[in-house]
Amino acid sequence: MMNTIEELKASIIEQFGTPCGVIDLDVVERNIKRAQELCDTAGVANRPHIKTHKSTLLARMQMDAGAIGITCQKLGEAEVMADAGITDIIIATNILGAAKSGKLSALQKRLPLKVCADNPVTLQAYAKAAKAAQRPLDVLVECDTGQKRAGVETPEQALKLAEIIKQDPDLDFAGWLFYPPLNGWQHTQEFYNKVSAGLADLDLEAGIVSTGGTPNFTHIGKLEGATEHRAGTCIFNDRMMIDVGFASVSDCAYQVFTSVVSRAGETRGILDAGSKTLTADTGGLAGYGYILEHPAARIHKFAEEHGFLDLQDCNDKPAVGDIVRVIPNHVCVSVNMLDQLVTVRNNEIVDAIPVSARGMLV
Amino acid sequence: MMNTIEELKASIIEQFGTPCGVIDLDVVERNIKRAQELCDTAGVANRPHIKTHKSTLLARMQMDAGAIGITCQKLGEAEVMADAGITDIIIATNILGAAKSGKLSALQKRLPLKVCADNPVTLQAYAKAAKAAQRPLDVLVECDTGQKRAGVETPEQALKLAEIIKQDPDLDFAGWLFYPPLNGWQHTQEFYNKVSAGLADLDLEAGIVSTGGTPNFTHIGKLEGATEHRAGTCIFNDRMMIDVGFASVSDCAYQVFTSVVSRAGETRGILDAGSKTLTADTGGLAGYGYILEHPAARIHKFAEEHGFLDLQDCNDKPAVGDIVRVIPNHVCVSVNMLDQLVTVRNNEIVDAIPVSARGMLV
Repeated sequence: MMNTIEELKASIIEQFGTPCGVIDLDVVERNIKRAQELCDTAGVANRPHIKTHKSTLLARMQMDAGAIGITCQKLGEAEVMADAGITDIIIATNILGAAKSGKLSALQKRLPLKVCADNPVTLQAYAKAAKAAQRPLDVLVECDTGQKRAGVETPEQALKLAEIIKQDPDLDFAGWLFYPPLNGWQHTQEFYNKVSAGLADLDLEAGIVSTGGTPNFTHIGKLEGATEHRAGTCIFNDRMMIDVGFASVSDCAYQVFTSVVSRAGETRGILDAGSKTLTADTGGLAGYGYILEHPAARIHKFAEEHGFLDLQDCNDKPAVGDIVRVIPNHVCVSVNMLDQLVTVRNNEIVDAIPVSARGMLV
Repeated sequence: MMNTIEELKASIIEQFGTPCGVIDLDVVERNIKRAQELCDTAGVANRPHIKTHKSTLLARMQMDAGAIGITCQKLGEAEVMADAGITDIIIATNILGAAKSGKLSALQKRLPLKVCADNPVTLQAYAKAAKAAQRPLDVLVECDTGQKRAGVETPEQALKLAEIIKQDPDLDFAGWLFYPPLNGWQHTQEFYNKVSAGLADLDLEAGIVSTGGTPNFTHIGKLEGATEHRAGTCIFNDRMMIDVGFASVSDCAYQVFTSVVSRAGETRGILDAGSKTLTADTGGLAGYGYILEHPAARIHKFAEEHGFLDLQDCNDKPAVGDIVRVIPNHVCVSVNMLDQLVTVRNNEIVDAIPVSARGMLV
């Protein structure tokens, strides 16, 4: 039997207090299943990015639903996930520096990792770490096709890195890592076709061709040659995913339960969740977060522990002590500030789970 | 003998890796001393806000330098600070809800707290918690004089709350909490004069009249009747404090050491510190953070673990593997995402200290 949302709010305020990061496991499971099905239908493997949840429990749920492995953004995240028994891991960033090299080496000794690079300096560091681990590292070359973040900008540069990898006995070429812009899949295809042709000349094969991003599920499978997709946000969704049309409010598994703690003005109020809970990251949207109970209320400003409510357009204004649920603009950055998530099902508290891989320095 | 900054960078990359939150203890001590002297000169007591550093060690340093107590923004922060032996604490927020009431009660049993309220609902919760603790709670009434955050907007409302406190055997009236806007000190004085006159009629006295904010050090002492000041950011300073003219670059004790991990374009680069380290909170400034080694470089965008460098105006462009130091726009929100801070002196690593009071849910 399903509890009411009021009963859940009473339990949260009784057992935890606000602000409180809450995830609905039914919605989480539905979201995991949806991402897996989107990948299955497109004929690419699913390698979720765990940066969104940083939870070993949720990573295991993704694996159990059919994921072939996971993607991490930090070496420290990979360590935590490896400790939890997950063995197929891509670390999707350039890993540099002595302390990290030592850690990388130690982890590579335990299990064969897949790492990424977009420059020769990183490749040198990888070769050194692999040699120390006495096990060659699988390296993907990160390619930029318009996002202008990490990633080489031309097929020629990509192939040059592949060649360096080929010549290094401590490195194995594993494939290509792409993050196509939403409107850049055609360009990504052209880029991919060129590097594929070049690979044949090098007598190499790309075991992995990875695309990324939750909004990119719209285009999944469009890149001919892609073998897998890595997406993070889709496990929880957020206001940005509603905005791009990927999710509806009911697909948002993560909500911050927060109390109205002040109503000092007729048309304004204060929540006990501010930028240290909901994040100042607007994701390009106006205002911060969507309030389920008062969709017309606007969170227009933050102090660190206070959300500033504009209630002008709100007919039914909340009172001091009311608990409201907020879907943040960008869930990944919000979860990153919490040490635990409260899990619920049918509006009943199930557990509190640690955000195990948060706070990793490197 | 002083190490070079290059030696410090080498130690950081060797022992910790990047990104790494680093504080220079000499600068911290100088900043603590400066805040104390500003208060001493103005004839008001110093009650630093620990939301910036959340470290029991740094709170103790502030106490040793002359602070009469501390300010916390969350009950959980107060618990951690009380465990560390700090006994004079103002919690500067409305504390509501059963779980928090229970915690408040337990803490109030251990030491007499000072709490804040701007509405009768909160006062009821406080009375209940105090009764359970069998020790009356000292309550400050929070007054808003223009910031439009928490705080009653009129002297009449403030006095009404003082009267409710007076009539409740479990509550003691402790004074007024102000956060004057930079240009609102005159209005704050008028507000204060009115509530002071009204207090006499109620036969009450304000033991504490608190002003707040690091930028407000410019006006410290201007409020006739003020007894103490609470400021947080001044212990570290940041780009916002440089912008308002309170600090110079050399007053910024907190710097994020971060590596250039990608230089895929001629005029761009990628840092391994993004919104999960430096915070998306712009503080109203253009760009995110000031790079000491490359003042002309702009951090114009963030991914979660990547800072996007615009190097157009940079003659001496950094290379992959270079370590640079970034002063974030808003230090409080950056520190809040880290589990530890590396302390240094004379460019030598001293220790790594926990951000003990971070991650407190309530």
